[in-house]
Amino acid sequence: MEKPSAILLLSCPDRKGIVAKISDFIFTNNGNILHADQYTAKPESILFMRIEWDLEGFAIPRENIREAFEPLARQFQMEWTVRFTDFTPRIAIFVSKHLHCFHDLVLRHRMGELKAEIPLVISNHLDLKPLAEQFGLAFKFYPISPETKTRQEIGEMEDLKKHKINLVILARYMQVLSSDFVKHYRYRIINIHHSFLPAFAGSKPYEQAYKRGVKIIGATSHYVTEDLDEGPIIAQDVIKVTHRDSAEDMMLKGKDIERVVLAKAVKLHLENRILVYGSKTIVFE
Amino acid sequence: MEKPSAILLLSCPDRKGIVAKISDFIFTNNGNILHADQYTAKPESILFMRIEWDLEGFAIPRENIREAFEPLARQFQMEWTVRFTDFTPRIAIFVSKHLHCFHDLVLRHRMGELKAEIPLVISNHLDLKPLAEQFGLAFKFYPISPETKTRQEIGEMEDLKKHKINLVILARYMQVLSSDFVKHYRYRIINIHHSFLPAFAGSKPYEQAYKRGVKIIGATSHYVTEDLDEGPIIAQDVIKVTHRDSAEDMMLKGKDIERVVLAKAVKLHLENRILVYGSKTIVFE
Amino acid sequence: MEKPSAILLLSCPDRKGIVAKISDFIFTNNGNILHADQYTAKPESILFMRIEWDLEGFAIPRENIREAFEPLARQFQMEWTVRFTDFTPRIAIFVSKHLHCFHDLVLRHRMGELKAEIPLVISNHLDLKPLAEQFGLAFKFYPISPETKTRQEIGEMEDLKKHKINLVILARYMQVLSSDFVKHYRYRIINIHHSFLPAFAGSKPYEQAYKRGVKIIGATSHYVTEDLDEGPIIAQDVIKVTHRDSAEDMMLKGKDIERVVLAKAVKLHLENRILVYGSKTIVFE
Amino acid sequence: MEKPSAILLLSCPDRKGIVAKISDFIFTNNGNILHADQYTAKPESILFMRIEWDLEGFAIPRENIREAFEPLARQFQMEWTVRFTDFTPRIAIFVSKHLHCFHDLVLRHRMGELKAEIPLVISNHLDLKPLAEQFGLAFKFYPISPETKTRQEIGEMEDLKKHKINLVILARYMQVLSSDFVKHYRYRIINIHHSFLPAFAGSKPYEQAYKRGVKIIGATSHYVTEDLDEGPIIAQDVIKVTHRDSAEDMMLKGKDIERVVLAKAVKLHLENRILVYGSKTIVFE
Repeated sequence: MEKPSAILLLSCPDRKGIVAKISDFIFTNNGNILHADQYTAKPESILFMRIEWDLEGFAIPRENIREAFEPLARQFQMEWTVRFTDFTPRIAIFVSKHLHCFHDLVLRHRMGELKAEIPLVISNHLDLKPLAEQFGLAFKFYPISPETKTRQEIGEMEDLKKHKINLVILARYMQVLSSDFVKHYRYRIINIHHSFLPAFAGSKPYEQAYKRGVKIIGATSHYVTEDLDEGPIIAQDVIKVTHRDSAEDMMLKGKDIERVVLAKAVKLHLENRILVYGSKTIVFE
Repeated sequence: MEKPSAILLLSCPDRKGIVAKISDFIFTNNGNILHADQYTAKPESILFMRIEWDLEGFAIPRENIREAFEPLARQFQMEWTVRFTDFTPRIAIFVSKHLHCFHDLVLRHRMGELKAEIPLVISNHLDLKPLAEQFGLAFKFYPISPETKTRQEIGEMEDLKKHKINLVILARYMQVLSSDFVKHYRYRIINIHHSFLPAFAGSKPYEQAYKRGVKIIGATSHYVTEDLDEGPIIAQDVIKVTHRDSAEDMMLKGKDIERVVLAKAVKLHLENRILVYGSKTIVFE
Repeated sequence: MEKPSAILLLSCPDRKGIVAKISDFIFTNNGNILHADQYTAKPESILFMRIEWDLEGFAIPRENIREAFEPLARQFQMEWTVRFTDFTPRIAIFVSKHLHCFHDLVLRHRMGELKAEIPLVISNHLDLKPLAEQFGLAFKFYPISPETKTRQEIGEMEDLKKHKINLVILARYMQVLSSDFVKHYRYRIINIHHSFLPAFAGSKPYEQAYKRGVKIIGATSHYVTEDLDEGPIIAQDVIKVTHRDSAEDMMLKGKDIERVVLAKAVKLHLENRILVYGSKTIVFE
Repeated sequence: MEKPSAILLLSCPDRKGIVAKISDFIFTNNGNILHADQYTAKPESILFMRIEWDLEGFAIPRENIREAFEPLARQFQMEWTVRFTDFTPRIAIFVSKHLHCFHDLVLRHRMGELKAEIPLVISNHLDLKPLAEQFGLAFKFYPISPETKTRQEIGEMEDLKKHKINLVILARYMQVLSSDFVKHYRYRIINIHHSFLPAFAGSKPYEQAYKRGVKIIGATSHYVTEDLDEGPIIAQDVIKVTHRDSAEDMMLKGKDIERVVLAKAVKLHLENRILVYGSKTIVFE
């Protein structure tokens, strides 16, 4: 069992002394810094920081840390949050018919790679119900039509609330979420798109790639925003193809990187390593 | 010194017996097949083939091979060409101000990696003149303005003709060639675009990539067609970037893959390994 | 349902006319060549070939093809075999405690990526029994100790025979098979080694890699021979690591490539794309 | 022109308050931290840190910084060094006959990628003399035989001293340096080995790789120590090969990654991003 630690994620206008003040705050309260990383965006001169320290022996009880840090945060006009590593986030996985990303997440969860609970699987199809239940996961069926979409999303959001979901993963979920849904879970919905964005946004990316005759295909994991396929990119990877690969071959090859890229993005999110800045991510690996 | 061989490149509607007839043509004339590769495009059912055989002891003198093969080609409605490996193609390199791709080609040429001659370097700037001359390469200066463009291109094409140029390489040449120019050298002009096409076509791809916040950047080498950045792709490669990379950092990292991707495309072309099919390439590696 | 085809795999001393004779054999019997690939090893001058043709309309009934081809094979001193694509190979997967490779193979099988049956899972531990049974796979438990090893292997081989197993996959099976076992299944046992061979052969490769401070780790899939970790390599891949990665982190990252590399090797084998030559493989992709 | 900054590189036993004390030292002297990175090696609990700050407005004159920092360093038992980014290191490149790595370094130097001077090229052959002189680089010829080696190395070291060399790059230099030479330039000699170490250490790695039948080849850049090919690894990269690649093809493909890997290592060194810990490197990218 790893010892719990605290993670401070923040951004603010860059000024002298920020690092000194923050590390002094931790030190004078008897904290031991385990890891710290920072980045200053140019030319805007905005500082982004992730700092993690051991909670053992820390003088401030964890429920008072936020209050204790508040004056410093105000002084430097920080946007900030504190997370604790012994908190276990709760994930809802949205799926349609493709099982490779879903199956991969379940496998990683079972092997202890994803420190989270998966209390809920939601789908607009029944195809993956047996697989979900085989792994003991609750499966909710929400068929979507243009007429029912709004109503169904309300049902879904109630389910998310009921299960106290912290993160929604679209594991090849073939429906576009409404702006309203997205707003409720800003930067808490991760999607996998089966192309190297911004190339081949939209539908059927492998067919687009085949038609264009590219020599490399890719996959992109990103936070979902109101603009489809335009959200901040978290992770990408590619794989080589040749003229011999049909669109279907590309789909098969692509599955392997879709799985890895989505899992990587989810892990980065669960480990509180991502800050969003405009349409981009700062990823402290 | 390698022994000379003949390379037959062809495409035709796929039918039974093509391979048998071609290999029989070579065998009955006492030729030894060194390498053969083929690909059938679906669903159009078009066969593409590259077959290479030893010229030593081949019963047909090389100047008569075309004539001797013609009946077979007609029977199967082939588009075809025969090349000889002891022919040394002549290259003109077009450059502007960036030197990395140009320098890399010159280096590879000097190391014997590119079996070609480079009798001509053309540029719309004078920056690389000293470097070209340092390597003993003829350098022609053709400054381009909207008013002079047509006239200058005529001059360039006369130079290409005079030097019996077989292949034009745009090694980060920052001018768009006219349709007329392109038509004269169809599938004999290779460009390097500093992005992973079709992402970030057009100008300043590294700035586009930086703004979008991608986690991987790329380079694409392609034949030049009338549609800018739409020509058949020959080779692509990518390199990882992070939020820490500025547009300028990406430009620096990108240089390394631009060089390699362009050199790869040029080598494939010089070795007669590329067939163009619509907007795509068939690359027999 | 794809139409069945025949695949001829052969090697022989390279001589003029081989390709012509083989393609003529197929053509005169009304066969349509779907794909052909060849390679001549230098300086030994040995030809390796894989040629696939449509069985529909082929004049020779499939049960007579071997007999009909025999004279040609003898004339050119071929080592050869004919396979049919509608034959479904039968796989036994050997596992110990690690589940990632096993789970991945089962997932791919379920998605239709592996054209094979998996009638048998064998293990020296009971850990993966529930998972195997959850997927409806027969699980046989063969605990191994130095004293029981020979006897247990006899039992295993009887099981393989009983289930008509064509291919044995060692999916992170932590026992060394005896020479006798290996001989019975020469080039029909595929192993995944969790390093970039020949680096870090033997046990605990991730710890070795961590100690050496490498910046890239890898995985290797190979046929099993009497010499441990020395068998012909089928596929390899790598992933970057940094000083921050502990041996355990490397193990986690490595899992992703182990899975992909093993699956790739298995697919190449099932598609009859591999010829073994000495300690190497010829892989016709 | 970039503004100068100071870089502190240190290692020490990990204790509470180190980061706070160091950042306070910088802040109270009116310094602005531009970048900071740290790593704690487990289980030894040793902290490694790289911290960079703006010299503009810094209260301590640069010539006094070492003295001012000394008490803090002593308190925490640091091994440490301070570097200034406007110092231009002086490089000697050692070559033999291969020109690709040498040429690549010269190209990067000319493009401004390597912030250093190259006052000296040393070789045991005369082959690259014309190329060096073409680029205006001083070339010293030191032919080596078993009898002359010791004497020649003395001459080389005098040259290094005379030219105030800070970094020696072995750009495919085919001689083993003596222990005595290595000791004088500990962690200031960078070598490129043309394999993925620890695979294929020693001579003719491409032939070794060809014989083993690997599917990927690599290159490794490392600091030179007394144990050949055993020095701390700085950077590695790989490229795919197939059975079609002869040892010579591998050598050709390998050139491309040798160049990139060596250049990467040199840049990391010049930017003061590397700390050595035992037989490993900590690389703060």
